[in-house]
Amino acid sequence: MANPVIAEVTRGGRVESVHRGRVVAIDADGAVLFHSGDVEEPVYPRSALKLMQALPLIESGAADALGLSDRELALACASHSSLPIHVQTALAMLGKAGLDETDLQCGPHWPLNRREELVAMARAGDEPTRAHNNCSGKHAGFLCACVHQDLETADYLDPDADIQRQVRSAIDAVAGTTLGPDTCGRDGCSAPTYALPLDAFARGFARLATGQGLEPQRADAAIRLMRAAMAEPEMVAGPHRLCTELMSACGGRVYVKTGAEGVYVATVPEAGLALALKCDDGATRAAEVAVAAALMRALAAGHDLAPALAPFARAPVRDWNGVEVGAVRAVEPA
Amino acid sequence: MANPVIAEVTRGGRVESVHRGRVVAIDADGAVLFHSGDVEEPVYPRSALKLMQALPLIESGAADALGLSDRELALACASHSSLPIHVQTALAMLGKAGLDETDLQCGPHWPLNRREELVAMARAGDEPTRAHNNCSGKHAGFLCACVHQDLETADYLDPDADIQRQVRSAIDAVAGTTLGPDTCGRDGCSAPTYALPLDAFARGFARLATGQGLEPQRADAAIRLMRAAMAEPEMVAGPHRLCTELMSACGGRVYVKTGAEGVYVATVPEAGLALALKCDDGATRAAEVAVAAALMRALAAGHDLAPALAPFARAPVRDWNGVEVGAVRAVEPA
Repeated sequence: MANPVIAEVTRGGRVESVHRGRVVAIDADGAVLFHSGDVEEPVYPRSALKLMQALPLIESGAADALGLSDRELALACASHSSLPIHVQTALAMLGKAGLDETDLQCGPHWPLNRREELVAMARAGDEPTRAHNNCSGKHAGFLCACVHQDLETADYLDPDADIQRQVRSAIDAVAGTTLGPDTCGRDGCSAPTYALPLDAFARGFARLATGQGLEPQRADAAIRLMRAAMAEPEMVAGPHRLCTELMSACGGRVYVKTGAEGVYVATVPEAGLALALKCDDGATRAAEVAVAAALMRALAAGHDLAPALAPFARAPVRDWNGVEVGAVRAVEPA
Repeated sequence: MANPVIAEVTRGGRVESVHRGRVVAIDADGAVLFHSGDVEEPVYPRSALKLMQALPLIESGAADALGLSDRELALACASHSSLPIHVQTALAMLGKAGLDETDLQCGPHWPLNRREELVAMARAGDEPTRAHNNCSGKHAGFLCACVHQDLETADYLDPDADIQRQVRSAIDAVAGTTLGPDTCGRDGCSAPTYALPLDAFARGFARLATGQGLEPQRADAAIRLMRAAMAEPEMVAGPHRLCTELMSACGGRVYVKTGAEGVYVATVPEAGLALALKCDDGATRAAEVAVAAALMRALAAGHDLAPALAPFARAPVRDWNGVEVGAVRAVEPA
């Protein structure tokens, strides 16, 4: 049974390509507001999981002990654009823990998101380092939590390392899962990544956004991270990227985070809602328009955030002369 | 009714993403060897159409009159990697027609395919020109055909321009279609692009590969273009790209060409077969493994080309440390 179409790509008045997927929205009580497709099947949220992965950084006391700023906490939950500000912030976090770039175990890569940023870096004669990895803030966060707790840093990416056990325990408590080796893969940054049912993942984010059903200390950690991300959206992704642009457009009232292979999670803390989606084929372009449309649907017609969200539900497709030749647009799933 | 899964992406022992699509293989008599999914629905073949779009270049006599080489003919059918050899060859074609880069109406872009190539160009201080557009060979071919026939060059991308009428007439004759304004979109290079049923498109390529059912002059033009592409595979795409690597691995016995949004066409002239596929969601990674698998299926077990094709039906997914964390692999559609 195929999941429904969530986005389509047009050209010349025809639909050229379609994207299928699943979406689920959860309210403050953990009830399903709406869903489409198989939302009980486990998916890898990939980087959409990062806020959960950063909980031990706060809960261990590391963030306070090391004096991490909101910008640094936002970077710990980020898939950043490898811009100088991101690299410098990751290095600053490591510095506060007495570490440096060589302690990171994520691989180096050039800026992934915009050709202009790659060209600028190449022209400047720079070479990518591990701190350029879009997950370097998450890794710096893992390492800060290790140092503060006197844990070994050399094996911090081992699924059996104490810091990764703490991460898994936090996810299980928040999402109501029981993550084991059969749900564990290796992410692009070499960190353990986990598969969980999309509805459990969304329900976990509803708890993080509202604090309902969480221990007070965990609820505080969650809202601190979410507020940091919403307050510093340029640290979470980068210019011209949906997470940054949508959070900016919504004035700190919406949290949204992408994950590789077509994943998004979003919350509106004031409305007590969270939603998650996975594009079956892994396409970011489809997940982007679909998450904006799903947020509008979850907030219902006439909500004052709707005008800020609407432009994100459609993205023009242009030729190399800049002429619009089609569009990627959200389709409301049946 | 959803089309079947043609490729899947794994991570940590799980399927992370899936790609659906349609595939059709046609024999020398125009009969369907096998098909899956809706292969009668029109799709845009995009750049997989380029060999058909180059027919007027030969049939008008322009290629002979201007002394175009096999490398230049291959470039006329190419989606090249914007490497110096590609840019120089496009400029040489224009030069033979007394034109230059300013006559091209495709927009400039940086190398699209490999980060290494973009970095090298940026480091050298170069800027992309129109001749860097991956379709510049096709455009140079249009312009050569215009000049030889004393046609206006200023409007060569207008769907009503004589050269575009010649292109449409050639496609209609070869594929048995009746292309009209309702089937016309604008490609990324700003040229008119057409939607046609996938089976008609594949059947047209079976005719081009065998000459069966074509006027002798058209059959000669087709096989000349196809042989040029198979003989000069590095002109058709570039290093580490499937069209180039697969044609090289098959020693000039297989023709394969990609199109944007997940399209492939392939022929094995000696076996009198052609096939075409479209990944519904437009993913190149899926179309790549699926076209290799479809070629193997069409050639049947034990064919001497099978060992050359097999490696292309699976592509490793690596993390940024180079460790294999999953794979993109073809799925034989039901």
